[in-house]
Amino acid sequence: MDYAKKALEAHANWQGKLDIVSKPKLETSEDLAIAYTPGVAAPCLEIEKDPEAAYVYTGRGNTIAVVSDGSAVLGLGNIGGLAGLPVMEGKCVLFKELGHVNAVPIVLSVQDPDQIVEAVAALEPSFGGINLEDIAAPKCFEVEAKLQERMNIPVFHDDQHGTACVVLAAMINALKLTGKNKETAKVVFSGAGAAGSAIAKLLADYGFKNIRQCDLQGIITPDNAANPMQKELAERLNPQGESGTLKDALKGADIFIGVSKGNLVDQEMIRSMNENAIVFAMANPTPEIAPDLAKEAGARVVGCGRSDYPNQINNVLIFPALFRGALDAQATRITEGMKMAAAKALADLIPEDELRDDYVIVSALDPRVCDAVAAAVAKAAREEGVVRHG
Amino acid sequence: MDYAKKALEAHANWQGKLDIVSKPKLETSEDLAIAYTPGVAAPCLEIEKDPEAAYVYTGRGNTIAVVSDGSAVLGLGNIGGLAGLPVMEGKCVLFKELGHVNAVPIVLSVQDPDQIVEAVAALEPSFGGINLEDIAAPKCFEVEAKLQERMNIPVFHDDQHGTACVVLAAMINALKLTGKNKETAKVVFSGAGAAGSAIAKLLADYGFKNIRQCDLQGIITPDNAANPMQKELAERLNPQGESGTLKDALKGADIFIGVSKGNLVDQEMIRSMNENAIVFAMANPTPEIAPDLAKEAGARVVGCGRSDYPNQINNVLIFPALFRGALDAQATRITEGMKMAAAKALADLIPEDELRDDYVIVSALDPRVCDAVAAAVAKAAREEGVVRHG
Repeated sequence: MDYAKKALEAHANWQGKLDIVSKPKLETSEDLAIAYTPGVAAPCLEIEKDPEAAYVYTGRGNTIAVVSDGSAVLGLGNIGGLAGLPVMEGKCVLFKELGHVNAVPIVLSVQDPDQIVEAVAALEPSFGGINLEDIAAPKCFEVEAKLQERMNIPVFHDDQHGTACVVLAAMINALKLTGKNKETAKVVFSGAGAAGSAIAKLLADYGFKNIRQCDLQGIITPDNAANPMQKELAERLNPQGESGTLKDALKGADIFIGVSKGNLVDQEMIRSMNENAIVFAMANPTPEIAPDLAKEAGARVVGCGRSDYPNQINNVLIFPALFRGALDAQATRITEGMKMAAAKALADLIPEDELRDDYVIVSALDPRVCDAVAAAVAKAAREEGVVRHG
Repeated sequence: MDYAKKALEAHANWQGKLDIVSKPKLETSEDLAIAYTPGVAAPCLEIEKDPEAAYVYTGRGNTIAVVSDGSAVLGLGNIGGLAGLPVMEGKCVLFKELGHVNAVPIVLSVQDPDQIVEAVAALEPSFGGINLEDIAAPKCFEVEAKLQERMNIPVFHDDQHGTACVVLAAMINALKLTGKNKETAKVVFSGAGAAGSAIAKLLADYGFKNIRQCDLQGIITPDNAANPMQKELAERLNPQGESGTLKDALKGADIFIGVSKGNLVDQEMIRSMNENAIVFAMANPTPEIAPDLAKEAGARVVGCGRSDYPNQINNVLIFPALFRGALDAQATRITEGMKMAAAKALADLIPEDELRDDYVIVSALDPRVCDAVAAAVAKAAREEGVVRHG
């Protein structure tokens, strides 16, 4: 299927995938006097008295920004903010269509982490949440942490945490199916960028005890880590500094998680894994190993990022619903507990007796996702008290 | 009419006056593949090759930001960005309903001029234009000038130039009606803030030779000017440093323009003006002199900012149409010539034989405005060559 040609035609027809529409209609001067001056002064004064009134009298509570500096767009690399705009518009489409969230694409002309932080922090009164997108590692970690520190609304880097949540959801079901135990299963990663680091962290928080992260140089140790995030994770997950290649690491492993490059894993490496291996090879568009080759080599549960294979690990299953829940609860941030709740709710959409090797995660457009995940996220936010008036 | 109560109820029902809708619908995985990954990579790559392609494949060319720091909202003063959000949403409603422009309300958490400039400049790839709004004088002059210098899209402070254009339009018609001559007519201002300065400048550019600006201390001279913009204007308009009170200035004046405070002008002052006086008393909600009192004291053409009197001088007649024209021409900035063209086109909507003392400007919701003004603005932009590919 030539998606490129179809996509160019469709985008030229749309001339922008989003439209902004007015709820008030302006037919009489009274319409104008209520939606604009002089009437509009009344809600302004209410918000001046109590900032929380903005959640009643404006759209802030259901509007987020999808922010990118264009430094790591899809697999295209640093193409800049403007060239990344079609992706951000697309992301806003998904937020609206799947999560009923109003989302505004914001692409920046600056790429320095401190400048990104200043630019986004200045927008705080405009939005009820910030979805960071396609910002290169490792600066994405710094940008997200600084913004979370400064802003009193949810700040969420989807490439990290959206991906992590959906992997955890699929993993929860794969464990049930294979009988593997999170305390003892050995997990090996290929890729330690934004997604790889966030998945490893979430799996460790979930209770996995044996995790090795590899990059193209092999197993990451506290001594060879390329950035502070990798070092922090290596100190937690591989304190003894076990070293070796990805191939070494995979021997006797139970689970492979690929968020790196196509064709890095061969059938021999899969054969060296334990029985009932779980293989999530999510490099796009070419997985670390083609799903059918992985199956042929003995892997039991195989997933990838593509829609043309079973078990598509697609973060669209998380971010619209997660923000829906966070906004519904008027959450001030997104906690580990809320992400965990999102993953569990997503996993639970498949009852245990319906789980199959090729069905550990629901399809990307499953209509049940939003309500189930949003409710779990909002509940977790309220229980943790990370909500306005909480 | 209790607009405050009605406006609060209406705003609570709307919970945000804007909605963001998706043009693509997501029903199948192919829909997803075209609007989002993998198809979306194709327009990204086209824009990376040629930034102008963003005007084909994204909504940038029809999307502007309405930006405020909330430092001078309506007549409410410095209520901050968040409390100003209802006004900015309202402005975006007007842009859409009257100009078919997608407009995003952006309220800032920063009020320092340099921080405002950095925050807005960083947004450049996201928008086809910037409408600055409700930023206090004199910092609004500095913010606008710096952004115009840095950004390659139109940057327009509506409180200044929108107001100036609509005043000029009404003035063009009032001159026709009264037979006054711009070369000899004496114009007196009360108010030298954002609007007052911009109106004085545009009238001078249009050819008025005799203009005096007053603030609460009286006639502004090069020596007593309160800020660089006032000083620049005083040096141009009042180089001899004529001083005195507003009352002094109005003796023998032909035209009064009020953008200051209610009830500063009495009937005696109007009586001291020349015959066929033109009085635009635009303080809101209470004019410098009530229109009926001004008429009674002998003024011939009287206008104000309110919709419940004739000759409403409302900048809604300019900004949606002016941006419509600028975006249609893919203008890179808004020039004096484009503003002048907007004012003339607006004036020309009333044929000379239909002009009356109480009808020198069309009503705020006149459906002819957008097409006429936008066409004139786009034509001026193309003639001046301030357009992309121009």
